[in-house]
Amino acid sequence: MNLEELLMNIPFLDDEVRRTAQKRQDQLTKPSGSLGKLETLSILMAGITGNPAPHLDRKVVFVMAGDHGVTAEGISAYPAEVTTQMVMNFLQGGAAINVLARHVGAEVVVVDMGVVGDLPIHSNLIVKKIDRGTNNICLGPAMTRAQAIQAILTGAELAYAAIAEGAQILATGEMGIGNTTSSAAIMAALGVAAIEDCVGRGTGVDDEGLKRKRRVVEQALRINQPDPLDGLDLLSKLGGFEIAGLVGVILGGASRRVPVVIDGFITTAAALIAVTLAPRARDFIIAAHRSQEQGHQKMLEWLGLQPVLDLGMRLGEGSGAVLAMSILDAACKILNEMATFTEAGISNKSGD
Amino acid sequence: MNLEELLMNIPFLDDEVRRTAQKRQDQLTKPSGSLGKLETLSILMAGITGNPAPHLDRKVVFVMAGDHGVTAEGISAYPAEVTTQMVMNFLQGGAAINVLARHVGAEVVVVDMGVVGDLPIHSNLIVKKIDRGTNNICLGPAMTRAQAIQAILTGAELAYAAIAEGAQILATGEMGIGNTTSSAAIMAALGVAAIEDCVGRGTGVDDEGLKRKRRVVEQALRINQPDPLDGLDLLSKLGGFEIAGLVGVILGGASRRVPVVIDGFITTAAALIAVTLAPRARDFIIAAHRSQEQGHQKMLEWLGLQPVLDLGMRLGEGSGAVLAMSILDAACKILNEMATFTEAGISNKSGD
Repeated sequence: MNLEELLMNIPFLDDEVRRTAQKRQDQLTKPSGSLGKLETLSILMAGITGNPAPHLDRKVVFVMAGDHGVTAEGISAYPAEVTTQMVMNFLQGGAAINVLARHVGAEVVVVDMGVVGDLPIHSNLIVKKIDRGTNNICLGPAMTRAQAIQAILTGAELAYAAIAEGAQILATGEMGIGNTTSSAAIMAALGVAAIEDCVGRGTGVDDEGLKRKRRVVEQALRINQPDPLDGLDLLSKLGGFEIAGLVGVILGGASRRVPVVIDGFITTAAALIAVTLAPRARDFIIAAHRSQEQGHQKMLEWLGLQPVLDLGMRLGEGSGAVLAMSILDAACKILNEMATFTEAGISNKSGD
Repeated sequence: MNLEELLMNIPFLDDEVRRTAQKRQDQLTKPSGSLGKLETLSILMAGITGNPAPHLDRKVVFVMAGDHGVTAEGISAYPAEVTTQMVMNFLQGGAAINVLARHVGAEVVVVDMGVVGDLPIHSNLIVKKIDRGTNNICLGPAMTRAQAIQAILTGAELAYAAIAEGAQILATGEMGIGNTTSSAAIMAALGVAAIEDCVGRGTGVDDEGLKRKRRVVEQALRINQPDPLDGLDLLSKLGGFEIAGLVGVILGGASRRVPVVIDGFITTAAALIAVTLAPRARDFIIAAHRSQEQGHQKMLEWLGLQPVLDLGMRLGEGSGAVLAMSILDAACKILNEMATFTEAGISNKSGD
């Protein structure tokens, strides 16, 4: 597979199947439309999968990790070694994503896309290190164009492998100290909002840190001069290896008609790149939740996506995405398992 | 048990336990506060249960049904016999509440609090008929004060029985053609909003039906002259048997330190009555979602409750409540199952 093949392979939503699903929703024992987003999401799942009775039992969340050279600028509240430490936490099952994935019955696939340190061999860890952390985006491109392509294709291949093993829905999660800075730079370069509206507090920088982070993003854009029409240019100059891998997961899922749930600020930055590379991919992406990270709402508006949840979360890791996967699963079960008015022998609306 | 004992038995939240839970949240491997409502809800669950490590594995949703004499006024889009037909659907497992309860692992307890028709004997149906439907609230009180008390105590006893069998969280659901009219009348009588803002389309009346529904609520208030300071007066004059039963479920749960999740417009009307009778009960109620039914948001504001979900739903049955129970369960698992920074050997925030 090469990148062009991947990008050319994104299909359209199946409108015929959507109409079939809509028709069934209208026959189920409830006032039509009364289940709100559960109804619209089930119809979207039908259109994505091409199946009027979509099932989302097998759920996989990819938690991709990478380090960021820009941490040298002091833009995070946490030291860079936390990326590696948190990956260990994922492998030991003690992180929020592990707890929430267990709760909804999703499998967590942890991928080292480019952590600086060496991680121990572990049955739950996939090592696809593109490099040991990105370069500092204040000084030049984060990675080469070839590395960006390699990371995207790696993500797509991992998505294909999961789908081949039965995954019916994919979610995106990430870990990478410094990656809200990278994501804010991508967002600003695309013109989604002014720099000051793109840069937020991430894991919790103070006012001084926030000012520094804004200056860093300004400098990254000035030094790199990314082309907003060229997704690969944006990604290689401003991105991270985990972000690039997630672009691949999104495109891989979309190209196989498998819904992909994005999480918060960073995974939505990956969606911005995916949609810049292949606009039709947008229709296969579900926004899990509205993150508290400043700028996320504007990203979702740019993508034209309505979030499923709004729980005031801003952790990342895929934590919001797995909760939304459970709602999507519920939506499909409504479509598949509810009785129709005829089956249940119930009088329909007067005059209907 | 009599009503006064029940009302006097509502405890306070346990602030000491809330502080213990907050302290643990702050030690977990995530930026403090980054899980938003999952954190605040877990702390609330600790305060409600008095347990710093609350568990919500065993979930029960009470779906209470009753008929309404006011349907004679033509205020519903569906004929009155649908109440009985939908109860049959609940027993056969084909309704939305069955599908969603299975999805989240909740048990559905269907209770006939006052359906007009005879229902078949069924292992999943509890028959507690107070009467065969209420009287038409346009012409006088819906029920006697004694019936209202009997229905409340019945609901509380059912809550106690479920708790004795291990239920750790209760949810409220309902079925009763005409019960949005009854709920709107309760809301208006309490002065939560002007009548025109209290009355919505329910299962889907047209503009003419909506006007008729408003006139009916005006007439019910004029004829009955309910006392907004007397919860029992409000309930007996304007309520329904299923609403009265749910008042009992709420008070029963609260009195046993078990969280009670309310659903949409009708179950929130039950909460209005419960809180009028026993103001402290409010602290034990969780608002599942923001219903699309006009007026629901104003009810939540009056109660001072923030909904967990906002999925554009307006079905009732407890459909939103069971989805929210799953989020509450997830919140408690975060508190109980995540590793602390010390346990995981992770560097905390710089300067912390």
